[in-house]
Amino acid sequence: MSINLTLPQFRHLSEDDESHLNKLLSLCQYEADHFLGYPCNREFDYSALYPFLNYPMNNVGDPFEPSNFHLNTHEFEREVLSLFCELYKAEKEETWGYITNGGTEGNMYGLYLAREIYPDGMVYYSEDTHYSVAKILRMVSARNIMIKSQSNGEIDYSDLAETIAIHRDVPPIIFANIGTTMKGAVDNLTKIHQIMKDKAISNYYIHADAALSGMILPFVEEPQAHTFVDGVDSISVSGHKMVGSPIPCGIVLARKQNVERIARSIEYIGSYDTTVSGSRNAISPLFMWYAMKTHDKVGFQEIVKRCFSIADYTIEKMSSYGLSAWRNKNSITVVFPRINEEALKKWQIAVHENYAHLITMPHVEKRHIDKFINDLVQDMEVAV
Amino acid sequence: MSINLTLPQFRHLSEDDESHLNKLLSLCQYEADHFLGYPCNREFDYSALYPFLNYPMNNVGDPFEPSNFHLNTHEFEREVLSLFCELYKAEKEETWGYITNGGTEGNMYGLYLAREIYPDGMVYYSEDTHYSVAKILRMVSARNIMIKSQSNGEIDYSDLAETIAIHRDVPPIIFANIGTTMKGAVDNLTKIHQIMKDKAISNYYIHADAALSGMILPFVEEPQAHTFVDGVDSISVSGHKMVGSPIPCGIVLARKQNVERIARSIEYIGSYDTTVSGSRNAISPLFMWYAMKTHDKVGFQEIVKRCFSIADYTIEKMSSYGLSAWRNKNSITVVFPRINEEALKKWQIAVHENYAHLITMPHVEKRHIDKFINDLVQDMEVAV
Repeated sequence: MSINLTLPQFRHLSEDDESHLNKLLSLCQYEADHFLGYPCNREFDYSALYPFLNYPMNNVGDPFEPSNFHLNTHEFEREVLSLFCELYKAEKEETWGYITNGGTEGNMYGLYLAREIYPDGMVYYSEDTHYSVAKILRMVSARNIMIKSQSNGEIDYSDLAETIAIHRDVPPIIFANIGTTMKGAVDNLTKIHQIMKDKAISNYYIHADAALSGMILPFVEEPQAHTFVDGVDSISVSGHKMVGSPIPCGIVLARKQNVERIARSIEYIGSYDTTVSGSRNAISPLFMWYAMKTHDKVGFQEIVKRCFSIADYTIEKMSSYGLSAWRNKNSITVVFPRINEEALKKWQIAVHENYAHLITMPHVEKRHIDKFINDLVQDMEVAV
Repeated sequence: MSINLTLPQFRHLSEDDESHLNKLLSLCQYEADHFLGYPCNREFDYSALYPFLNYPMNNVGDPFEPSNFHLNTHEFEREVLSLFCELYKAEKEETWGYITNGGTEGNMYGLYLAREIYPDGMVYYSEDTHYSVAKILRMVSARNIMIKSQSNGEIDYSDLAETIAIHRDVPPIIFANIGTTMKGAVDNLTKIHQIMKDKAISNYYIHADAALSGMILPFVEEPQAHTFVDGVDSISVSGHKMVGSPIPCGIVLARKQNVERIARSIEYIGSYDTTVSGSRNAISPLFMWYAMKTHDKVGFQEIVKRCFSIADYTIEKMSSYGLSAWRNKNSITVVFPRINEEALKKWQIAVHENYAHLITMPHVEKRHIDKFINDLVQDMEVAV
């Protein structure tokens, strides 16, 4: 029996395709220098890890279980999870988690876990919650009620208390924003626990969406409540936001006793499958590991401090031109009235209704802010 | 106001960390040459695309909608989707899709879509279905019944027909395996349609899980039914399997009229959010694009032919040593009785109950098979 051992020869990219690709790369170079509106840090260099991209890496399944698929980075993933346990004051032996493909998967995991624990639970979340949560709630068929927000983006505690009071027969599942998408507002966990206490509710679940602020609050002097000690039951944090990554990723942590309850119910249906995704990216855990190993706590404190100072610079400079701008405590999200479409587009500014924001991520320098405000001011002059 | 413009200086990796990383890389080199049991191709080289890893790329949201996040590869993603439409005979104007983080997300999307269209629908799937489907069904709270399999891994059509007959009051949602995980069996779509016709059922949905075989069947002379013309309503195919990628990814395609129905219902809850993940990997669409542009149809035909011939070589050689091995039609999955633990571990062979498989992916050469069978035979001699 004869087998052709040589692999087929493949084509090279056509000239058109190559030029298409090069145009995209040039565009990325330009756009990355005009990147103010989204909470993605572009200060990273993972080139030391590119050799791993030669292999079909896969972190399939649970990072804490042995795997017969050996091309994995589970060991590094566990080390990253352990570092995040420290950040959120979680007891390592009592906490489970994994590295996700991003915020949606972490929030989906948290809400799925909560719904499994309280199948008839009612999910409460503020109107400033990220739009993807409505989709997740629909996907996991969880009963839910949207609660009013305050003008700073925080949940309205009176509306929350009144609404919970009407549904005292079912356990509340609180989807808490630890930094809202548009205004960087932090829902007050102390007040939320107090509401439960006032209503004598002992069975409830708190999932924290700390996509961006999860990597800010551990590094500030006066953080708002956001840890397991503060009573969160699960937390989702993005890796491509404050840490920075060319590939969206995130970290989800949850109380192990809850995860074990879910694992038992999954066993019933014939599977111990604990992660939302089966085949899982093994490269982004390496990126996260590398970032956490090359930035110590003091390093992150310095980064966060610098982000605050650029945010304050932005607010002062906008104010000096009569443009009102503000930020929430411990937030690097600068909120201001909606600006003209051209500037929105040029600086990739996110808008919602009549306001807009920019986020002073670690890559944002004074020169970016100066140029951006210059564009706004020139536009004002033209308007005059 | 003075701002420190220099970024904090970061640590280098410690010697320990560096050695930890280098050990992992050496391990990957070794393991990649002993990689027979999982359907992940390791024949790829995307190094030309690494410059994109310098940027916080993100394909957030729908690939067909304009995005204010400019560091995206939506255009390339759409081109890949268009090529996959051709493979599965889908009318481009009538088809929607996106590049996922892997098979789970594609299957989740298909089942979520089906459940939205038929909220009281009953999902039928064979016992040879991938274990993650049980988890997805639980997540999306879909009513479901597991159907018996035939010994070759195909669904048992009598059991399917009888079970559907008992539940004729609710629309069937068929989760069809176009290549089962363990045996590479293809559920017969023609027979499934006939069952519906026999029972006068006109409202039903077929989702095809074509994780591996989705990139085999379009390139063989006598493919089993697997296309939109054959009546699938959505299809999920992995990118990291036959195409090859260091990062798990996949393609999901669905009939646009169904997606629009779901979009309307999502609009009601205040969101047009169509993809399961919000922030989405923009790098893997580039990898897929590059692979599809450097392999033409003839190239893939040659790859598949070579995989079949290595599979047949494996079967013949195993048989010559009295080891029974077989494969399904158009499958590169070679099934044989469970072997000893040491060989399982060394060659990363997947097992289920009393049988095992190896998959002759494009990177598997005769020399790997020879060494593997040699290990088995030596073990037999020791046993004798």
